[in-house]
Amino acid sequence: MIYEYKRKVNYYETDQMGIVHHSNYIRWFEEARVELMDTKGLPYQYMEKQGIMIPVLEVNCKYKHPCKFGEQLVIQTEITKYNGIIMEVSYKVCGLEHEDLRVIGTSSHCFVDMDFKPVSLKKMQPLMHNKIMNIN
Amino acid sequence: MIYEYKRKVNYYETDQMGIVHHSNYIRWFEEARVELMDTKGLPYQYMEKQGIMIPVLEVNCKYKHPCKFGEQLVIQTEITKYNGIIMEVSYKVCGLEHEDLRVIGTSSHCFVDMDFKPVSLKKMQPLMHNKIMNIN
Amino acid sequence: MIYEYKRKVNYYETDQMGIVHHSNYIRWFEEARVELMDTKGLPYQYMEKQGIMIPVLEVNCKYKHPCKFGEQLVIQTEITKYNGIIMEVSYKVCGLEHEDLRVIGTSSHCFVDMDFKPVSLKKMQPLMHNKIMNIN
Amino acid sequence: MIYEYKRKVNYYETDQMGIVHHSNYIRWFEEARVELMDTKGLPYQYMEKQGIMIPVLEVNCKYKHPCKFGEQLVIQTEITKYNGIIMEVSYKVCGLEHEDLRVIGTSSHCFVDMDFKPVSLKKMQPLMHNKIMNIN
Repeated sequence: MIYEYKRKVNYYETDQMGIVHHSNYIRWFEEARVELMDTKGLPYQYMEKQGIMIPVLEVNCKYKHPCKFGEQLVIQTEITKYNGIIMEVSYKVCGLEHEDLRVIGTSSHCFVDMDFKPVSLKKMQPLMHNKIMNIN
Repeated sequence: MIYEYKRKVNYYETDQMGIVHHSNYIRWFEEARVELMDTKGLPYQYMEKQGIMIPVLEVNCKYKHPCKFGEQLVIQTEITKYNGIIMEVSYKVCGLEHEDLRVIGTSSHCFVDMDFKPVSLKKMQPLMHNKIMNIN
Repeated sequence: MIYEYKRKVNYYETDQMGIVHHSNYIRWFEEARVELMDTKGLPYQYMEKQGIMIPVLEVNCKYKHPCKFGEQLVIQTEITKYNGIIMEVSYKVCGLEHEDLRVIGTSSHCFVDMDFKPVSLKKMQPLMHNKIMNIN
Repeated sequence: MIYEYKRKVNYYETDQMGIVHHSNYIRWFEEARVELMDTKGLPYQYMEKQGIMIPVLEVNCKYKHPCKFGEQLVIQTEITKYNGIIMEVSYKVCGLEHEDLRVIGTSSHCFVDMDFKPVSLKKMQPLMHNKIMNIN
């Protein structure tokens, strides 16, 4: 399932080159990922209440074409790997109107408890695991 | 005592007007305030370990002249009110070289415990209180 | 006219107190203000293309009650002063569900040309002026 | 040459996990890169005045161990590839005291003119080119 997260560029996200500062895409990836997890019935707030945090292990981002203030964007977001311990999410930022590609990226995540100890979601939280696996 | 906090403008702090985005001064005030408290022997980390957080009640900021990427600045920082319950800090952002005024501001704070319940520092943490009062 | 700007709290907008960092409200005010100007037929992008920028002269913010990650908010936004040279906008951040007050604020603005020289919108850009005045 | 950029963690850079939000490392990389270019006699401000901007083509970041508010860090920064058209910079974020590794990353860059048209620094700006190559 590819989740389409829609997003407008804010003024404070631009820099003096007149384009979106490259660090902001990492933040937009997070926004999109949070919404994606929501649609799977796994809101971050719920997971943190259950004692599960989802830190980032790695992030990659390729900048193809800049985004500008006021533009409408869509971030196509998808879980591209998941094995109960590690989750990888992939992102494609496009202009909303012409679907022209701007930025692609991935983020890798593990699951930890409140002491930052890694957790196997498959073993410790089978319900969450099944939701990510789309097993009903 | 006026504490002089020195600071260089980062690229990511500019916006498409080619100047520092106005929201960043609020963050710089925090940087300066944290350093000021450090010099008083009251690092934020220490206070949070003692169960005291210092949320912001109010912030005011007047923008006189913009700051640009790469500029060296000094933020003159001072506790201008303190009564054991409320603390007000005042800030003056100037160019380092010519001491020309850019921005002035204030922030008001209270002290709360980890449940966000207001705390009288004077009563509950007399040592911290005395340090802010500069009583040795 | 009060414009209601709806907004969800992002994860990256929280700090280690577990609440929204106070500097972000200044950014949300900007988001709301940009949308408000849009509804008046005065998108920032259009104004900047016409050679008019709208820097911030002053900002005030009173924090009543914290916002948390994932919360749905509404920012009630209104132009409370305007005389052709100076514009003041007022903001009220409330929870979307219970309309409970979180933060109030104001921002003051002038209008400048691309060299940061102040401009009387009333004289130089009567069409823009009339749109802000709601004169059709 | 490895440039050592020293940096303290700011409060506003933390998130509700109580650690530095992962997007901020991308910003710190930029800070370190700007300082590195400075030491080579190539301040970003100078380059932009000469009509050369240095956008980011790609960024990678691996998070080994979190950083916390107030910590002193050092970012070891090095140009690891450069051919006159493309520049790659590598970063290693360590604790200042124990030199323990926190984050590693790279960023790739090209050089463009003010219309975002790619420029061969080697051909168009041989002096800048030689400075990056450390040719005196």
